[in-house]
Amino acid sequence: MIVTVVGVGLIGGSMAIALKEHGIAKKVIGVDASKNHLNEAKQLGLIDESGTLSYAIKKSDLIVVAIPVDAATKVIPRILDRVTTQVVMDVGSTKRQILEAIADHPKRSRFVGSHPMWGTEYSGPKAAQKGAFKGKVTVISDRDKSDSDAIEMVENIYRAFEMKIVYMDATDHDLHTAYISHISHITSFALANTVLEKEKEKNAIFDLASAGFESTVRLAKSNPTMWLQIFMQNRENILDVLKEHISQLKKFETYIKKGDEKELKHLMEQANKIRKILK
Amino acid sequence: MIVTVVGVGLIGGSMAIALKEHGIAKKVIGVDASKNHLNEAKQLGLIDESGTLSYAIKKSDLIVVAIPVDAATKVIPRILDRVTTQVVMDVGSTKRQILEAIADHPKRSRFVGSHPMWGTEYSGPKAAQKGAFKGKVTVISDRDKSDSDAIEMVENIYRAFEMKIVYMDATDHDLHTAYISHISHITSFALANTVLEKEKEKNAIFDLASAGFESTVRLAKSNPTMWLQIFMQNRENILDVLKEHISQLKKFETYIKKGDEKELKHLMEQANKIRKILK
Repeated sequence: MIVTVVGVGLIGGSMAIALKEHGIAKKVIGVDASKNHLNEAKQLGLIDESGTLSYAIKKSDLIVVAIPVDAATKVIPRILDRVTTQVVMDVGSTKRQILEAIADHPKRSRFVGSHPMWGTEYSGPKAAQKGAFKGKVTVISDRDKSDSDAIEMVENIYRAFEMKIVYMDATDHDLHTAYISHISHITSFALANTVLEKEKEKNAIFDLASAGFESTVRLAKSNPTMWLQIFMQNRENILDVLKEHISQLKKFETYIKKGDEKELKHLMEQANKIRKILK
Repeated sequence: MIVTVVGVGLIGGSMAIALKEHGIAKKVIGVDASKNHLNEAKQLGLIDESGTLSYAIKKSDLIVVAIPVDAATKVIPRILDRVTTQVVMDVGSTKRQILEAIADHPKRSRFVGSHPMWGTEYSGPKAAQKGAFKGKVTVISDRDKSDSDAIEMVENIYRAFEMKIVYMDATDHDLHTAYISHISHITSFALANTVLEKEKEKNAIFDLASAGFESTVRLAKSNPTMWLQIFMQNRENILDVLKEHISQLKKFETYIKKGDEKELKHLMEQANKIRKILK
């Protein structure tokens, strides 16, 4: 089939690679607000051609929307306006606002909301990776609101990518990702700012930065535009987790200040329980 | 030469492997408060024999102290009491209190304070790794207080391990590691507790936990006893960074609450500057 990828960046580009690799897309058409990104995507072989949104929709069997979530919320209704039998899917990190924006659209059932749980701290076409999604989890939201042929197409794609499909309504998705993904980004951004603020001796950071520092701070390199839109769309859940996180940090502060070794050790033993969940 | 490793865990065990691998130690004697760990270390081939501290000191050319920093502060003076021409080195994550504890010891100059910047979230002999230190940074503290033959022995060991040696006095070391290492552990422990507190649906964590979550929360699996002692020994520096970190998180909270996209984006763009420092 012919696939349009709207947004030829990290995720869109990686989707294009995987769709070709698994023989799902014969041709990929790229649509992007950035001419530079389109040129890069062509040079990297991510897409075969580029074109306007309406040209691309007409030519395609599937349209994959891989742009920041605020933009997606605006663009998806416009895509559905032009759709006949095509399938439209998104890959955004929030689901509630996107699905609400099209709740009453006459072509709602041609849309499948999804969120493949993969990403890196890099962005743009050059950040796209081969084999990105293999073995990862993907969420499909509000499955019952989509036509069965549309769901089937999206499921077959994710299965071909060897992803584990989890079904979750948009509200649950946004709640869980606040804990599992969004808060990690905030702590990482804040940790980078902490270190940059306090540690004027850049050489000391450079010399001493260990693997532990690198892993907790890595996400601070992430794209501000993309994450701004996620934070805005998932505001309430994120504020709730952030409040809890600040209160957990204050417990550490209090017990370190007091020198309360017993309580401090207890906090860490509690935290160790994350072992049961992570490998 | 014959080397004693006091504390045959993650770091001591990895040191034993490297000392043998590079032909520096002909024999490694293990000393540990835990009989189980000594047996494990023997079975894993990390050590050749075990014995009491005084037996091991007598037999050895070098004594490597690789136990939690509070214990090290107590044990190192006792080791120096028994030393004649041997060299004693430590590998602890804090330096000031350890060096203060032996400042007036008649054998002070036989001691070299060091901190190889490597570790994982695991502990015990089974966590020891081959090639652990290669390419990493190691700090040698207060070099001028050690005999030149002692410094030379320790430098040669770290050079054989292909580590980059950085010289830093104990006070600077403890300040910088508070930013570069200790705070990352606190945020990770606190993040794990946040998620465990709020996210009762363990299956959702398990299903959705992405690479980003795993990397920010990985350190929460770290050993509470070891980190308790580091937090206590580096209390003032850590409280200073922690205060700054909480205030940085509150900025995110405020701007997300207000929906102030401009300031929020600015915070993330600032954080992106960590790119210049990390690869």
